[in-house]
Amino acid sequence: MIIDALYNKVQERGPICLGLDTRLDYLPQYLLDSELTVEEKLYQFNKRIIDETLDLVACYKLQIACYEALGLEGLRAYSRTLSYIRGAGALVIADIKRGDISSTAEMYAKGHFEGDFEADFITVNPYMGLDAISPYFKYLKTGKKGIFVLIKTSNESSKDFQELVAEGLPVYQHAAAKVKDWGSEFIGESGFSLVGGVVGLTYPQEFKAIEKVAPSTFFLIPGYGAQGGTGEAVAELFKEKTCGVINSSREIITAHKGKTEGEDFAKYARERVLHMKEDIGQWLK
Amino acid sequence: MIIDALYNKVQERGPICLGLDTRLDYLPQYLLDSELTVEEKLYQFNKRIIDETLDLVACYKLQIACYEALGLEGLRAYSRTLSYIRGAGALVIADIKRGDISSTAEMYAKGHFEGDFEADFITVNPYMGLDAISPYFKYLKTGKKGIFVLIKTSNESSKDFQELVAEGLPVYQHAAAKVKDWGSEFIGESGFSLVGGVVGLTYPQEFKAIEKVAPSTFFLIPGYGAQGGTGEAVAELFKEKTCGVINSSREIITAHKGKTEGEDFAKYARERVLHMKEDIGQWLK
Repeated sequence: MIIDALYNKVQERGPICLGLDTRLDYLPQYLLDSELTVEEKLYQFNKRIIDETLDLVACYKLQIACYEALGLEGLRAYSRTLSYIRGAGALVIADIKRGDISSTAEMYAKGHFEGDFEADFITVNPYMGLDAISPYFKYLKTGKKGIFVLIKTSNESSKDFQELVAEGLPVYQHAAAKVKDWGSEFIGESGFSLVGGVVGLTYPQEFKAIEKVAPSTFFLIPGYGAQGGTGEAVAELFKEKTCGVINSSREIITAHKGKTEGEDFAKYARERVLHMKEDIGQWLK
Repeated sequence: MIIDALYNKVQERGPICLGLDTRLDYLPQYLLDSELTVEEKLYQFNKRIIDETLDLVACYKLQIACYEALGLEGLRAYSRTLSYIRGAGALVIADIKRGDISSTAEMYAKGHFEGDFEADFITVNPYMGLDAISPYFKYLKTGKKGIFVLIKTSNESSKDFQELVAEGLPVYQHAAAKVKDWGSEFIGESGFSLVGGVVGLTYPQEFKAIEKVAPSTFFLIPGYGAQGGTGEAVAELFKEKTCGVINSSREIITAHKGKTEGEDFAKYARERVLHMKEDIGQWLK
């Protein structure tokens, strides 16, 4: 199962998920000044970073919003980047956070598990309940696709709804319980399910409580770096077991800023990933 | 403000929002058999239905999932359809249900309020709280754009989270209260806010309770027709005031099925819209 492949990568290389949340203003000047199309500029930027980090990271994540913001051209770059990552044998999470009723969720499943936008994993929003999630199960049954359901997101306003207390438990704990139920049919050799969860590194206590409710859940954990999460916080979560991937984007893909505007920009991304591995590793030891 | 424009259309023509949730298997055989590209087939289908209904409906709604399912080609048809509707002077809601943290929501706002995918209104998911919504306010301040926040969706599993009771109120009522707060700065001449809400026609009692909490909220109401909502149910909601638009998609855009597979297909969509207006109208009287 693909969750085992992801788990194995994390065991082997550490838990880094490199977020290609690419924006035009992140690009080095030489690329911005080139006569390439916007599509090509974005793609070349991503490709060089991927080439420099392919041996280091557990997986990649693309925030589709960054590409949607640039319209069709952006989405062409998105499609090519996904294809390049998968063609290189690496795993990729499409951070799309879709959520809609069943017949519509079927369309999203088709859109992001097949064709131009095919990814290995997608993120989904649970607000509409089971029938907004179950259409993905058909793909999970093949063992080749997985989902990460939003449980407790890394932003401050996640409290607005996710921390409302119902029947003695915050809403995010209800989400965790659902994720456990939904995922119980899809558990791989690693002991983890193809139905994973998104929990922010910014909420370590909540993380522990969620893990207790849903112990077979592999986590996609945003919030490292720019959002405030530290290597020490990661080590705390991973003390007992390898339980997920830690996403970092801006810090890595803008690491060249102030250092170079030239073709060597991607080596700073590599350096930054190595630094992140060290930061997490020193605490894990 | 654009919410006033929508309100006026509803006053003038009735509350029909025509959903162009177009799928290839909805297309008449003559189009499927033609040598046009998939993009062109989808666009031509939509264009003919728009041409036949432009004088009848309050607005259109495009479910982006149907287009994402077909990859880049689908999204080109999506972009052209939006542009055609807006070019014809009609209003269009992009049913995208996006929801993400602030820097990402900014990207979605740019993607769907500008450029290739520019729409007049978009639907958004509140699970991540205020900072996933506030990036849209910049556009709302111009008076030219609006959002519809998911409150109580029309599907059965909406109960999984939306009906959890916290502090004595179901989660969807908390959502309604937030929608009221968020929208208070953006109220137009009609008395309605640029921050609207999505509430399924399948939940008439919940609708009344939500309306009480958030009286300046204009509603996008799915669930008529295929999902079980009736003209009588609509009349009940509109008894005291014009409070929203009723979306219908499948019943209208597949009305030609079993009748024609030829170029005259769109006249059945027109007939169906007229029938829907009559169905709602007979109860409104």
